Amino acid sequence: MKSNTKKKLAKPGSARKERVILITNDDGITAPGIRNLVEAMKPFGRVVIVAPDSPQSAMGHAITISKSLRLDRVEVFEGVESWQCSGTPVDCVKLAVNKVLHRKPDLLVSGINHGSNSSINVIYSGTMSAAMEGAIEGIPSIGFSLLDHSLSADFAPARKIVEHVVRNVLEIGLDAGTLLNVNIPKLPFGKIRGIRICRQANAKWKEEFDERLDPNGRKYYWLTGKFINFDTGDDTDEWALHNGFVSVVPVQFDLTAHHAIQHLNAVSWKIR
Amino acid sequence: MKSNTKKKLAKPGSARKERVILITNDDGITAPGIRNLVEAMKPFGRVVIVAPDSPQSAMGHAITISKSLRLDRVEVFEGVESWQCSGTPVDCVKLAVNKVLHRKPDLLVSGINHGSNSSINVIYSGTMSAAMEGAIEGIPSIGFSLLDHSLSADFAPARKIVEHVVRNVLEIGLDAGTLLNVNIPKLPFGKIRGIRICRQANAKWKEEFDERLDPNGRKYYWLTGKFINFDTGDDTDEWALHNGFVSVVPVQFDLTAHHAIQHLNAVSWKIR
Repeated sequence: MKSNTKKKLAKPGSARKERVILITNDDGITAPGIRNLVEAMKPFGRVVIVAPDSPQSAMGHAITISKSLRLDRVEVFEGVESWQCSGTPVDCVKLAVNKVLHRKPDLLVSGINHGSNSSINVIYSGTMSAAMEGAIEGIPSIGFSLLDHSLSADFAPARKIVEHVVRNVLEIGLDAGTLLNVNIPKLPFGKIRGIRICRQANAKWKEEFDERLDPNGRKYYWLTGKFINFDTGDDTDEWALHNGFVSVVPVQFDLTAHHAIQHLNAVSWKIR
Repeated sequence: MKSNTKKKLAKPGSARKERVILITNDDGITAPGIRNLVEAMKPFGRVVIVAPDSPQSAMGHAITISKSLRLDRVEVFEGVESWQCSGTPVDCVKLAVNKVLHRKPDLLVSGINHGSNSSINVIYSGTMSAAMEGAIEGIPSIGFSLLDHSLSADFAPARKIVEHVVRNVLEIGLDAGTLLNVNIPKLPFGKIRGIRICRQANAKWKEEFDERLDPNGRKYYWLTGKFINFDTGDDTDEWALHNGFVSVVPVQFDLTAHHAIQHLNAVSWKIR
């Protein structure tokens, strides 16, 4: 995958034709997070929203292939073209490009997610999978998350961070095949110490299941879990967030573990 | 992430305590592919199956957090402990470790998937996400796919390939943080030219939507698409499969685009 093809986008106010910005999320089109993202992005171009009609958290990179999809124009944001989709965040991106915009947008932003998508959460996150689908399509794409699950979270500091990150991405572009995973600590803007470019921390969820009995006496389970960070590095997203910084991790969809190829070739793979 | 911690497993017939092998898939517990994988794995240890109770293709790394899960013991495979789960392939792995085995298995194998999971398909695949969840848990994990969607596909060549790959993995172990994505061409065993260690090809789906009207005159969509391979390298999984080889791609869940960090640091991230 080539890594030196920078996609530079025109700056606000340039003479080029209008910049089109696609916005999506995984918390659904009525979530406060996407409303704040729309407000933050309006100065940067023409905003179009295609978002799930219901919460789709933890959907990962799921797509809908065994049932059909609905896509309906809705009036949720005054003066902004908005569509709700019955599918996953990745479905939203595919439908947006193919059936709403009929072209690639100039920028895709996903979020602002209610809750962290740092470290291993990038794998489970619908917000980040939408951004990854954008990158696969060749669209400069960014996912934003705020470390606050509350529906009444204060998104004002996050909006300032969104503006800052987007301005920088418009300035320098993104490497082909990469997207950004931006996580914002739950702090007043004055307490945020800065923005750090990081790597994904080596962390995982230790799953736990809450076991219950239904009214017929049959067992059922709720998935819960405990987050464990094994990584002691000070260049990780977890370190940044715990120390009052915004974390920005460049993410790729080439999952090849290139370093492992040599080890695997140490044994014979002859089949006869 | 450390890459030099090889996990060596005891070979068949060794004096160590019995090897436990967890098997899952995304086509559901009744699919022919998992039945063939069970048969191929029996000689390697005690097999336990925890698989979805219905097809879960293209579920990516989705997990179930907004509804509860069922897990029921079933008699599907004679003499083999089998459980069906109402959740996604990743849910199956989490439930298997936590509520069935009460320990990590020594090996996780997922599949045999009906259809390719090569190149970008690794991102959308439930089969591969189950294997990735295994790797996140620290379990040596392999996903197998056969390039044949037919329910009456001939799995005999694939079974021989499974045995070969598993024997090699038991021999040399896997790097920590990596899993294997194994794709098998639709060929008689005698026509398979060999097994190649590959990188993920740079390819994507160009989405297309089949637009229809429901009986009430409202539009709905079916997601389809065309697979496009941009990659001309002869070291990719697509090249191997098109040339009659089995492809083995080492996959990682550290998604950091390390090469992009320097580029991003070329601009100021000061917020005040």
